[in-house]
Amino acid sequence: MLGTDPIAYVNGDFVPISQAKVGIEDRAVLFADSVYEVVLVARGKLVDLAGHMARLERSVTELRFPTIDLRAVSAVLERLVEKNAIAQGMVYVQISRGEAPRALMPVENPKPSVFAFARALAMPRTIADTKPVAAMTVPDTRWGRCDIKTTALVAPTLAQLEARSAGFDQVLFVDEQNNITEGSASNAWIVRDGVLLTREPGPKVLAGVTRTRLIALARSLQFKVVERAFSADEALKADEAFLTSATALIVPIARINLVQLKAPGPVTSRLFDAYRQFAFGH
Amino acid sequence: MLGTDPIAYVNGDFVPISQAKVGIEDRAVLFADSVYEVVLVARGKLVDLAGHMARLERSVTELRFPTIDLRAVSAVLERLVEKNAIAQGMVYVQISRGEAPRALMPVENPKPSVFAFARALAMPRTIADTKPVAAMTVPDTRWGRCDIKTTALVAPTLAQLEARSAGFDQVLFVDEQNNITEGSASNAWIVRDGVLLTREPGPKVLAGVTRTRLIALARSLQFKVVERAFSADEALKADEAFLTSATALIVPIARINLVQLKAPGPVTSRLFDAYRQFAFGH
Repeated sequence: MLGTDPIAYVNGDFVPISQAKVGIEDRAVLFADSVYEVVLVARGKLVDLAGHMARLERSVTELRFPTIDLRAVSAVLERLVEKNAIAQGMVYVQISRGEAPRALMPVENPKPSVFAFARALAMPRTIADTKPVAAMTVPDTRWGRCDIKTTALVAPTLAQLEARSAGFDQVLFVDEQNNITEGSASNAWIVRDGVLLTREPGPKVLAGVTRTRLIALARSLQFKVVERAFSADEALKADEAFLTSATALIVPIARINLVQLKAPGPVTSRLFDAYRQFAFGH
Repeated sequence: MLGTDPIAYVNGDFVPISQAKVGIEDRAVLFADSVYEVVLVARGKLVDLAGHMARLERSVTELRFPTIDLRAVSAVLERLVEKNAIAQGMVYVQISRGEAPRALMPVENPKPSVFAFARALAMPRTIADTKPVAAMTVPDTRWGRCDIKTTALVAPTLAQLEARSAGFDQVLFVDEQNNITEGSASNAWIVRDGVLLTREPGPKVLAGVTRTRLIALARSLQFKVVERAFSADEALKADEAFLTSATALIVPIARINLVQLKAPGPVTSRLFDAYRQFAFGH
């Protein structure tokens, strides 16, 4: 289905994505008062769907949306995979507080909006299919609740634009203690002496579904995984570093600021193979 | 026109607002990668339009949108006032980076989306028409570039929800030094011994157009206005406190946390009258 007009879903209707629209007073549009998930599709199946739905439920609860039937949302995502005949790719779903005459606090609670789409994507078969990235550390100026997966993503957009202007592919956000929080849309990991480090989830670190899965896979391979904050200085001295996300899977970091790293390193490569085996079966 | 379906504008077309829609892959929807302005309409005219357009230009420049014809945007806003026959109310305009297949960094630069709508609003004729608010101080968890007027407004939405649950009408954001930054969608002011204090614009304080206008009006009335940070403790000891925004004009604060303030106080009332005279001529 690459290159065609995929079928999307908007508030009960399946329509071509070019016709999938929301009102300009939807709170997704006006206030980024909405949350989302991106789910990997492999072998025609939604990968770690339960983990994504659990996080989506937490997001809507944290924003105090009314109760949403997340089983029905899951069913929509599965139908999108079928309707678009996607073997590998992604499904995106977004839920907003709904459409209401513009006011920061709506006069009446609107009905939440649910919309979703699916796309086929080329997926890396080996770690060599993923281009290692040059990453630049930048102050983490995002809001204080990055544990909620909202669409208030202008901060990473602007940071990425600045990184691109400076000749980098990717940002690594650092907090006021110079500890790395996240990439622009990914969790960050480093490898030192065979040990994997990734920061514990918190207000500035999303509980990545791919991250959680990879921790389990790494431990099953007998790697030691430590969940703790690590500084940009530690990252510069790491043996390897990489990013994880639902659709990019595992992305080696070849450079942080002016320091080159081995990319892909041997641990990153083994983890990629394990994740690929888990999701794609080969 | 109160209560009817107003005429809105979307990317070149004037349509009833119920039919005014944007694609679900517009970056306003997916990433809050968009900026906006709310302009007061009084006596059928856009109030301080030049100030709003200058700020909009700064916002689009800071987010590195391509050049946008802001004269054409101004003309659209004026036409919305005419088409909706609005004597008093507001015009809202939003500009996003545009619609593109979802990726934090779009593969090709899209064409920016421009949409706008106007609504008639009941406006206070005297300060007694505006209900004083109870305000709760809360940590300012917003992102680091609140000087750009983006639609990434989930932080104030969530803060307002929490304030409402706690029995308050409004939040006053405070920074890590316990200094007040802003209300949820307004600039904050206090009055002490006849002197007006409002914080200087910066990363956490938007350069409010109403704020700028009121500083000039206050000085023309021989008030001393000092632009500096002030703490929540100073606010609690103030003689008066109020909020300013384009459509709420001047809102007295009757209580901050557990401390009652005189609302409306005499200075707040005089400033309201001056602003009303400026905008409405009476």
